[in-house]
Amino acid sequence: MDIQTLLARFATGDTLAASRLMSAVERGGVDAESVLDALFARTGRARRIALTGPGGAGKSTIADGLTQRFRVAGRTVGVVAEDPSSPFSGGAVLGDRVRMTHAVGDAGVFVRSVASRGSEAGVSPLACELADVLDAFGRDVVLIETMGVGQVETRIRFAADSIVVLLTPESGDEVQSLKAGLLEVADLFVVNKADRAGADGLAADLTAIAGMRAPGAWQPPVVQTVARDGRGLEALETALAAHADWQAAEGRGEARRRDALRERVRALVEDKWRRAWWQDATARAEFDDMVERVAAGSVSPYRAAREIARGLTPRASR
Amino acid sequence: MDIQTLLARFATGDTLAASRLMSAVERGGVDAESVLDALFARTGRARRIALTGPGGAGKSTIADGLTQRFRVAGRTVGVVAEDPSSPFSGGAVLGDRVRMTHAVGDAGVFVRSVASRGSEAGVSPLACELADVLDAFGRDVVLIETMGVGQVETRIRFAADSIVVLLTPESGDEVQSLKAGLLEVADLFVVNKADRAGADGLAADLTAIAGMRAPGAWQPPVVQTVARDGRGLEALETALAAHADWQAAEGRGEARRRDALRERVRALVEDKWRRAWWQDATARAEFDDMVERVAAGSVSPYRAAREIARGLTPRASR
Repeated sequence: MDIQTLLARFATGDTLAASRLMSAVERGGVDAESVLDALFARTGRARRIALTGPGGAGKSTIADGLTQRFRVAGRTVGVVAEDPSSPFSGGAVLGDRVRMTHAVGDAGVFVRSVASRGSEAGVSPLACELADVLDAFGRDVVLIETMGVGQVETRIRFAADSIVVLLTPESGDEVQSLKAGLLEVADLFVVNKADRAGADGLAADLTAIAGMRAPGAWQPPVVQTVARDGRGLEALETALAAHADWQAAEGRGEARRRDALRERVRALVEDKWRRAWWQDATARAEFDDMVERVAAGSVSPYRAAREIARGLTPRASR
Repeated sequence: MDIQTLLARFATGDTLAASRLMSAVERGGVDAESVLDALFARTGRARRIALTGPGGAGKSTIADGLTQRFRVAGRTVGVVAEDPSSPFSGGAVLGDRVRMTHAVGDAGVFVRSVASRGSEAGVSPLACELADVLDAFGRDVVLIETMGVGQVETRIRFAADSIVVLLTPESGDEVQSLKAGLLEVADLFVVNKADRAGADGLAADLTAIAGMRAPGAWQPPVVQTVARDGRGLEALETALAAHADWQAAEGRGEARRRDALRERVRALVEDKWRRAWWQDATARAEFDDMVERVAAGSVSPYRAAREIARGLTPRASR
């Protein structure tokens, strides 16, 4: 079936067409761009929520629990799972992880996993693009589950309206070293597995970190959950709603979305430029030659880069 | 003192000159480039070892212990500490972390901390450049201590001759989800705090991961340590030496260094191009205008990027 037919079916709410369009986006290239071009005008309605945290923190369980609650409230849900440890994305080889049990057989829930490279942090451009498709498909909420912390990538800010950083009492040591990153990124903190020792201490640390925000800025709430039993999920849902309300009242939601679009265009331009450079035989030959000279010690990497860059001025074609 | 004078003193082994040149590199810009240009011919002699792992895993303690052992063996040491939780880099605000006690007052040890952004993974270009300076200064070994895992950045491969991934029994959950990344990156695994429960299980998991390497490839050894007591450090030193010997015998060391130089030139060219683009008023105005149109919904980010990139062809100035 060609892209135009799929797009027409997609517009009528055809789940299979949605799935195939996502596959086209995943394959990349010209088809991916035309799909995303065509769908862009329909995006912007969904509330995007990113769940990030280390493996084993319970992101999938939280995603499952939140999905249930959103469904009860009558909202449709899309899930993009980028965490390599997520059962959604074919992970969980060794452990017994929770399955997204409630999603099975509910047409109001659409789950899509991303084949993650397993070694990069943050939300990939692909995950954002799949979120676009789910948004255009009319999902009220799009959850993006992604591996994070160790390092929290500040780039994640551009992926969602609300960023939920999920930790467990075991994350205490890391929290200390991640203060700045967490502070920049989190809109909400969740201390999951809060029935374990150390939960209150971690929550207190996170509350202290949240309190370092500038006056007038959003103060990230800290919610304790035991996701496996559903404990704390109502509070989390309430906190997410409060964040959305605050953004709407302060006009911050639009500003963040504009920043995200800006960042996205910038990244796409750089990507296109990089490909063009890499695919130009003459430019590649010059680069290879220069690397030889660097390896031979006859020129430094810095001088080599200067000489190459001299021929690559950004606006030279005008 | 001007850069030329500092370079002349640096060549005579003047520690203060080395420190000032590193500050110049840290400030960036034209001076940084001329320092690095001038020093490049002197680099390539030091053995570079990266220590990466989550906060609280004991990287500083291991770095301290290894430094001691290298010094006993008569080798001079440079340390670049990029981990925001490292006591070297002014971290450890909340906890009582080990200090680099043995380094104090030993002219054979030069420690330099990098003001990390605290939210990005991997080894920064700046850390690599400071390692260059320490290499050019004649240090036999340069240790690079960096935050990693959560996500292991594959870029770290280009930062050192040996990559040591440091974990603790508490990291078990994460290891499972990081298999691919760890496998790509690690030359050696260290299970620190090996007197805690779960150390043997983690070591067995890591050995299994290491065994997935292709035949003929280096099989990363797994070393258990209790760094606070110095236990296992001799085994770690031996394993590091074995890795160096293997690289020399197989000719892999040179190949990796060439790949690293290649990657470095590529990154520098992209960086220069990005700056040139961003500093060009006309190009910026076009970009801003296009972002407005995207935000207004009249053009998609993909079409916007295509239109902008059309004017930015890489070799257009020839």
